[in-house]
Amino acid sequence: MKTVYLDNNATTRLRPEALQAMMPFLTDLYGNPSSLHAFGSQVGRALDTAREQVGALLGVRSQDIVFTGTGTEANNMALKGYAEANPGRKHIVTTPVEHPCVREVCAWLGERGYEVTEVPVAADGTLSPDAWRAALRKETAFATAMAANNETGVIFPYEELAAACAEKGVPFHCDGVQAAGKIPVRLAESAVSSMTVAAHKFGGPKGVGALYVRRNARLKPLLHGGHQEKGRRAGTENVAGIAGMGAAADAALRDLPLEESRVRPLRDRFEAAILGRIPGAIRNGHPDQRVPNTSNLGFSDVEGEAVLLILSQFGVCVSIGSACSSGSTEPSHVLRAMGVPKSHIFGSLRFSLGLDTTPEEIDYASARTAEAVAKLRKVAGKEAVRR
Amino acid sequence: MKTVYLDNNATTRLRPEALQAMMPFLTDLYGNPSSLHAFGSQVGRALDTAREQVGALLGVRSQDIVFTGTGTEANNMALKGYAEANPGRKHIVTTPVEHPCVREVCAWLGERGYEVTEVPVAADGTLSPDAWRAALRKETAFATAMAANNETGVIFPYEELAAACAEKGVPFHCDGVQAAGKIPVRLAESAVSSMTVAAHKFGGPKGVGALYVRRNARLKPLLHGGHQEKGRRAGTENVAGIAGMGAAADAALRDLPLEESRVRPLRDRFEAAILGRIPGAIRNGHPDQRVPNTSNLGFSDVEGEAVLLILSQFGVCVSIGSACSSGSTEPSHVLRAMGVPKSHIFGSLRFSLGLDTTPEEIDYASARTAEAVAKLRKVAGKEAVRR
Repeated sequence: MKTVYLDNNATTRLRPEALQAMMPFLTDLYGNPSSLHAFGSQVGRALDTAREQVGALLGVRSQDIVFTGTGTEANNMALKGYAEANPGRKHIVTTPVEHPCVREVCAWLGERGYEVTEVPVAADGTLSPDAWRAALRKETAFATAMAANNETGVIFPYEELAAACAEKGVPFHCDGVQAAGKIPVRLAESAVSSMTVAAHKFGGPKGVGALYVRRNARLKPLLHGGHQEKGRRAGTENVAGIAGMGAAADAALRDLPLEESRVRPLRDRFEAAILGRIPGAIRNGHPDQRVPNTSNLGFSDVEGEAVLLILSQFGVCVSIGSACSSGSTEPSHVLRAMGVPKSHIFGSLRFSLGLDTTPEEIDYASARTAEAVAKLRKVAGKEAVRR
Repeated sequence: MKTVYLDNNATTRLRPEALQAMMPFLTDLYGNPSSLHAFGSQVGRALDTAREQVGALLGVRSQDIVFTGTGTEANNMALKGYAEANPGRKHIVTTPVEHPCVREVCAWLGERGYEVTEVPVAADGTLSPDAWRAALRKETAFATAMAANNETGVIFPYEELAAACAEKGVPFHCDGVQAAGKIPVRLAESAVSSMTVAAHKFGGPKGVGALYVRRNARLKPLLHGGHQEKGRRAGTENVAGIAGMGAAADAALRDLPLEESRVRPLRDRFEAAILGRIPGAIRNGHPDQRVPNTSNLGFSDVEGEAVLLILSQFGVCVSIGSACSSGSTEPSHVLRAMGVPKSHIFGSLRFSLGLDTTPEEIDYASARTAEAVAKLRKVAGKEAVRR
């Protein structure tokens, strides 16, 4: 059966360039980059190259890139690192729609005496910079907001949020996992203190992430031990994974224009087909202020998980909420924060396209989605649905 | 130039079985194991297989294995996790010869009000279980000792240390990174609360480690976020790396008898050649109570780093101290703790063999080492050295 993979926000296919960059370090060049002998130190040069490539994707100096094991680790490192570096400040500013790894760290700090302010989002998922600015205090240890939402694709004005933080002397961490490789990111000219990215969201391998840390940002390490990454993150480097991340970053930067010219029109074609064909269907999230590849759609009178499983039988891969939230029976915290009505919140699905998604796949997926929703409604006796 | 790789304690060559196990997940099977669709969930089965394989290497149930990004992360997770789970206890027992990642975590806790007791080692690097037992207290949050030392290969009686801890109700964490795959490890029958292993030390890829956590061991997570690894370690799994680690564990378990039958005789042949040929050479560490592949040798009147660099020009890869300590100008903390005399501590080198090391390589390396030491002594005018 043909697989139509519309779950690129969960993970992308590894780019061939990335695999090619990895192979030498999975075969002949197996030295430890920390070793002093020539066989090891030649491996270290691969880290330098990858650091340049990831720095270029984010528009920053390579020396400000710290490689980590995952995006989750990078987010944990940033938030806990700011908290530890600013022990006198016990206030956090964030949003209710962050990825679970940001929310859970904030909750963990909350249990340790931190007051957590969540700046609410609008019904379309957007965030008001004025409300953000108003939430910042002198005693704010850090503020954190994502660049683009993993479930809806909605983009936050993170540069503006960073500027507001800088005015108040508050470190600003941005979870950039769903933005990097989808929209242009130029951090050097911004006031962003740190940004997390994850390789497997833009064609790199799983098991490697990176944290951009602005020069002079005060941040304590999360992993203690060896001197790797200039003492900022101990542990033997995932050399092959880092080389793959670098090559993927390079390719993603090259392909960035395709996100607008190819992916966005396909996504819009998909949404038009669904919204025009299925009664009781809504789009969750701002229509324009979104990354080009993501579509979050809600259907009344069906369970999203049931739609997902039928689509899976058709070979169409989509998700409800985020992969990192799956297993939970709660409705999406993102859609709840947006106030998506009860009639649609349980029937919402995320479709996330990739650079290799074709028009044929889009048409197949929209037709199968319409079938799945109709079938489930028929079973439930809800054929005549409210529009 | 021929490379003679005697730095297997820094990292091993990736086993072909491991690469083969990784390839499907670097190509077609790129789904996220947390995804609910069939394309993602089939990937999850690879994690189950690897968990069985790593569990088998350690002689434990697969469900007690938690995959991490590195051995360093696993050690940080265990030690900080015990500290957080036992907030009323402010005492730690450890040794002065642990890997930097254990030492640095203990030092970090020390800055936070923990009293750290280091049980000294003997001149041959061994540890007395009686001294260990005497150091344990009711208020000990955790005790931690390695199974085998990364610099000298000296084995600690970790099962006995664990039993002493269990008697006092103290969690015992063991850094097993240099033991797994070199000596038999059967944890289920022991009182060990947790053990760290790292894939790249036994033929797996860099960028993946694991923590065995005994059922009912009280341990808080280090990385907060998604539900992965049953909530014990958040973050998208390094699927390919984990599959590679599993296959490497399987092969390492199969090849374990070769460590004694093949590697140990080669190591002993190497040591005999060096100690017989080079005046003023000593062996650091107990002659027998060591893993089979490791030889730490000290030479009077030379700098270890100078020997290392000459050997590197000959294609022979060795190390001074551990790779994770390199860049430091201090003499090895391990050799200092053993009381290795000043005459030899700066001239000590670690030679760590692998399963593919040949007798010819051993003879080449011992001859080149003798040449290098003689050359450096000649330059320094120390030809007539004390024995």
